[in-house]
Amino acid sequence: MTVVNYRPAPDELSYTFGGRDPVLEVAPGTVVEVFTEDCFGGRVRTVDDLPSQVCEFPYLNPVSGPIAVTGAEPGDTLAVHFVSITPARDWAVSATFPHFGALTGTHATATLHPPLDELVWRYDVDLAAGVVRYHARRGDFHVELPLDPMHGTAGVAPAASESRMTIVPDAHGGNLDTPELRAGVTAYFGVNVPGALFALGDGHCRQGDGEVCGTGVESAMNTVVVLDLIKGEPTPTPRFESDAELMSAGSARPLEDAYRMSQHDLVTWAAGLTGLDVLDAYQLISQAGQAPVGNVCDPNYTMLAKVAKRFLGPATAYDGIHDRLRATAAGYRGNAIQ
Amino acid sequence: MTVVNYRPAPDELSYTFGGRDPVLEVAPGTVVEVFTEDCFGGRVRTVDDLPSQVCEFPYLNPVSGPIAVTGAEPGDTLAVHFVSITPARDWAVSATFPHFGALTGTHATATLHPPLDELVWRYDVDLAAGVVRYHARRGDFHVELPLDPMHGTAGVAPAASESRMTIVPDAHGGNLDTPELRAGVTAYFGVNVPGALFALGDGHCRQGDGEVCGTGVESAMNTVVVLDLIKGEPTPTPRFESDAELMSAGSARPLEDAYRMSQHDLVTWAAGLTGLDVLDAYQLISQAGQAPVGNVCDPNYTMLAKVAKRFLGPATAYDGIHDRLRATAAGYRGNAIQ
Amino acid sequence: MTVVNYRPAPDELSYTFGGRDPVLEVAPGTVVEVFTEDCFGGRVRTVDDLPSQVCEFPYLNPVSGPIAVTGAEPGDTLAVHFVSITPARDWAVSATFPHFGALTGTHATATLHPPLDELVWRYDVDLAAGVVRYHARRGDFHVELPLDPMHGTAGVAPAASESRMTIVPDAHGGNLDTPELRAGVTAYFGVNVPGALFALGDGHCRQGDGEVCGTGVESAMNTVVVLDLIKGEPTPTPRFESDAELMSAGSARPLEDAYRMSQHDLVTWAAGLTGLDVLDAYQLISQAGQAPVGNVCDPNYTMLAKVAKRFLGPATAYDGIHDRLRATAAGYRGNAIQ
Amino acid sequence: MTVVNYRPAPDELSYTFGGRDPVLEVAPGTVVEVFTEDCFGGRVRTVDDLPSQVCEFPYLNPVSGPIAVTGAEPGDTLAVHFVSITPARDWAVSATFPHFGALTGTHATATLHPPLDELVWRYDVDLAAGVVRYHARRGDFHVELPLDPMHGTAGVAPAASESRMTIVPDAHGGNLDTPELRAGVTAYFGVNVPGALFALGDGHCRQGDGEVCGTGVESAMNTVVVLDLIKGEPTPTPRFESDAELMSAGSARPLEDAYRMSQHDLVTWAAGLTGLDVLDAYQLISQAGQAPVGNVCDPNYTMLAKVAKRFLGPATAYDGIHDRLRATAAGYRGNAIQ
Repeated sequence: MTVVNYRPAPDELSYTFGGRDPVLEVAPGTVVEVFTEDCFGGRVRTVDDLPSQVCEFPYLNPVSGPIAVTGAEPGDTLAVHFVSITPARDWAVSATFPHFGALTGTHATATLHPPLDELVWRYDVDLAAGVVRYHARRGDFHVELPLDPMHGTAGVAPAASESRMTIVPDAHGGNLDTPELRAGVTAYFGVNVPGALFALGDGHCRQGDGEVCGTGVESAMNTVVVLDLIKGEPTPTPRFESDAELMSAGSARPLEDAYRMSQHDLVTWAAGLTGLDVLDAYQLISQAGQAPVGNVCDPNYTMLAKVAKRFLGPATAYDGIHDRLRATAAGYRGNAIQ
Repeated sequence: MTVVNYRPAPDELSYTFGGRDPVLEVAPGTVVEVFTEDCFGGRVRTVDDLPSQVCEFPYLNPVSGPIAVTGAEPGDTLAVHFVSITPARDWAVSATFPHFGALTGTHATATLHPPLDELVWRYDVDLAAGVVRYHARRGDFHVELPLDPMHGTAGVAPAASESRMTIVPDAHGGNLDTPELRAGVTAYFGVNVPGALFALGDGHCRQGDGEVCGTGVESAMNTVVVLDLIKGEPTPTPRFESDAELMSAGSARPLEDAYRMSQHDLVTWAAGLTGLDVLDAYQLISQAGQAPVGNVCDPNYTMLAKVAKRFLGPATAYDGIHDRLRATAAGYRGNAIQ
Repeated sequence: MTVVNYRPAPDELSYTFGGRDPVLEVAPGTVVEVFTEDCFGGRVRTVDDLPSQVCEFPYLNPVSGPIAVTGAEPGDTLAVHFVSITPARDWAVSATFPHFGALTGTHATATLHPPLDELVWRYDVDLAAGVVRYHARRGDFHVELPLDPMHGTAGVAPAASESRMTIVPDAHGGNLDTPELRAGVTAYFGVNVPGALFALGDGHCRQGDGEVCGTGVESAMNTVVVLDLIKGEPTPTPRFESDAELMSAGSARPLEDAYRMSQHDLVTWAAGLTGLDVLDAYQLISQAGQAPVGNVCDPNYTMLAKVAKRFLGPATAYDGIHDRLRATAAGYRGNAIQ
Repeated sequence: MTVVNYRPAPDELSYTFGGRDPVLEVAPGTVVEVFTEDCFGGRVRTVDDLPSQVCEFPYLNPVSGPIAVTGAEPGDTLAVHFVSITPARDWAVSATFPHFGALTGTHATATLHPPLDELVWRYDVDLAAGVVRYHARRGDFHVELPLDPMHGTAGVAPAASESRMTIVPDAHGGNLDTPELRAGVTAYFGVNVPGALFALGDGHCRQGDGEVCGTGVESAMNTVVVLDLIKGEPTPTPRFESDAELMSAGSARPLEDAYRMSQHDLVTWAAGLTGLDVLDAYQLISQAGQAPVGNVCDPNYTMLAKVAKRFLGPATAYDGIHDRLRATAAGYRGNAIQ
């Protein structure tokens, strides 16, 4: 087992997918330990650090990487197994940001309203207890919420020579902002450029569905992934696999298109895996499928389509690579997978 | 405990919310046992009964009712506790319907494509085993899915002298098509006309998120509800309460507006219940909230916003009526609640 | 020529399409002179009359009617030729209304912003000069804009026993809010109930595309229409015909669906009129068609698809009824058509 | 007057905005004569050349450029005056393309329908008569439509190190696909990178509103522009100025957001030019404004907000540069401006 550790220097952080040389190249099957900064670049540390004052556009939502995977070529699929995602600090922050979020006028849903108040919430992170602690800004209310760490942003270089801000989710991955991207999950991304150029960031200690205010419980993370390669099999949109479920992501506006894209991919993927006719698969997913909401605040919205593998018969995705990566993860320093 | 049984004659079925006299009047607190036909009026019984041939527009999606509740007036809230929802037959059906569903061109998302094939799937319903059995139309694939009965359609007469087809979900309820409307849940509807005029139908043995093909596992139901009244407290959009959670429904297009409406109601409702400032509640729901998808196929799409009550402190909705109705339900012939 | 004059008493005004008995019945071919109140029921007369204070929901956007047309049956088309639309007062008003309009959070596009300021603008109406005069509320700026009178709301009773608030545009017509509904135009509505039950209101001295603030230059109107009937020919969505152009209306959300519906109807209508294959008509409309925006503020948004008749060859819509109604209009007391 | 001529070699064509070095650098005020290929790279020449067969993704929609303008820096505005746009061939083509266009399922509005038939239409271009000639593919129907040449694609390098496919319209310009981008118009683009890096392509002999089938009457063009610079004045979204009108472009999905963005920019721009309070400007644009539809088929949809300058008093945009560029254009070889 090859294990590589990567902690980016501040000036190595990346703010786009695409348009950058790799910071690292690894062979397929490598375990990568990587530190990721939070979406504010670590600059929002107290409730007095207003993001619009301490951060500077476009230096938001930094990702660590890109990491090249040796031998990856367009038409292949990059498999990224998340071994563990561990908050790196004992605090985390969330904030309203001017004209960003679902319940506010925005750049695109343009209104004549002045922005909502910009406020920061600082959470205590208690790894031992497995909780984050919310404190109201006005009044004494506080409550513990379960820790459920995830990466909001993960993906590869886009196709067609595009370079996209890390805040954008699309076919290459990016800022999908879904709680389903947690430890124990394998993410699949279609490779668009030689080396695939994987990067990740934007850790959340937890996040509600849709990230309605625009930010999760934002935290730097110490994360362990296994990067592997599926040669000759393309993946049209980001997909995830957990021990029990298959998932397809769709990113678009309006939100029904994100729903359509994700359901369409899951229906056709399930048809391919099971040998079902497409309309038979459509019917099965219609009754057995779920639709977890990712984000309803980013430049594209993201929804997932999800189905339990047990409803699909003996079908195995990507020739069983998820199980093999689970085994690799189990062997990594005996680490329990969160 | 007053128990009333209502089984509509075929010509008593209703196809609108609003615009009809009540079929029944009951006092607040009455237990009502009601039979509901399936969305096809029971006419689709085999895979050869194509809905577009055996059903006639607008005689689709019949509801049983409306039932007047004595004393209900505009500005009150009708509480409907679902004691049990039991499939009435040992079979159920689902279908693709021409130009209806999420992965097809529709009346509104108008395209020049001919309709997808119209197909019917017939499910076996096994109450004892708690499953429905899916059979592919083409090939031998079959699989059991857990029974999870729900009503797709439930609501009251709309405001402003409107009358709406039962297929429309909106502020009055209607065809919300959410799996969250299951037994054990109390639904809250704002009263718009004297008597409230509650009706329900469109039972599903189960349904995937979004009802992507346009129909669930459609079944006639024997359902038991308790109808009760909360005087002087309005409810702006349908809300649900389970033992563990509070939920707000939003119905609109595009889907992000259904999301916004539901999250907005849950945020402001939670603020009212907890005494939190609205932005503090926005933050809390942003991290603790969920967003179950109802339908993404009806004239309005429906999403729910949901939060666990335990995250809201000692707050109690509607003065604890849900717990009281649970007790009433428990007393009803000793029936176990599903 | 039969001419009927109808001026509703205040308590005769209607606030829905559907759900009401006719106020009048006329034979096909009748000229009807009708007075319509403005969308505020005439209660907003100065800049100090705030709509949210002087008007009461749902008593907004009153229409005059419904008028039954003898012999109209479902499956027929009602032709309404607008002979003249004349502002009834020498002033008109417009306003921002809380949480209504395109550049504000609304009921559906729910945000946490407080409403924008509610302001009223009072316009001078100068029929002789053919202008309305805008005065800024803050400062001395004023400017004359051309008078271009139209009806925001016109339609028939909906199908399927529905009753809809007058503010809603849909397949039955209603609050389409398009400047194309001006004098000289014939509007076509599919008949859904015996007598068709036509009503109209919401006159605007003029309106920008989309009615972005939510209201036009609102005015009571003295309007003359000819009501006629096309037996046995249905009309799926409201259509308009001017001397030079054919138009189809689509009302939906999101706005692209209103676009799709209107373009789809114009493409298939043009194919039917010309004998073109549908894809050939698609291509022709793609290059020759226009897409006037109606409203982007009502419960459904409205767009029109428009094409010059000269691009369609010798095709004649509805057997040339528009030209015949133009002749009728010319004979009506020698009135010049605006 | 400096005049530069640029005709790209085939391998010089660009398929992105951003991510490329300039092909040329010119001083502000330079007249540039430029040849642009059509959106198919000139490969679709007959009705038998199906785009999906003769073109290769992502080598679609080539642009000529980018051209650096000396001294342009972020925060400045690039002014591009279109002196003339002349079809370069006596034929042009349009086509349906699989899963592209407004009346078909697409990549994002994902459906299970097979694509519509892929068909090519070849137009005759008659510069002398000022028309293009449409021929139906099935049957003898043909008709002449007025020539109204425009560029579908024009813009600068995006902000934030992004690189975007030329088919995408956004804040940097790109594939706006609006008929308003015709000769006689000055376009304004905010500068995001040193040199601005202007490029253009995708000429249309004419186009209907929304480009409903996905393509216009596609043609190579010989185009003359004047490139000039407005130092120190940023432009948030593409704007256009004709002799009579000001226009703002918005590109987004859903379409109402493109409407909102464009109207918002025009309202605030008009307020700035006139000194009107923003709500006064909102009211004025609400009554005086237009909303020309650009495209309803590209990755973002585009709408324009437009107002006649005469309604804004003596206000002058960008210190009158449009009039000065008109004068420059008039001096260019005495060419009449189309």
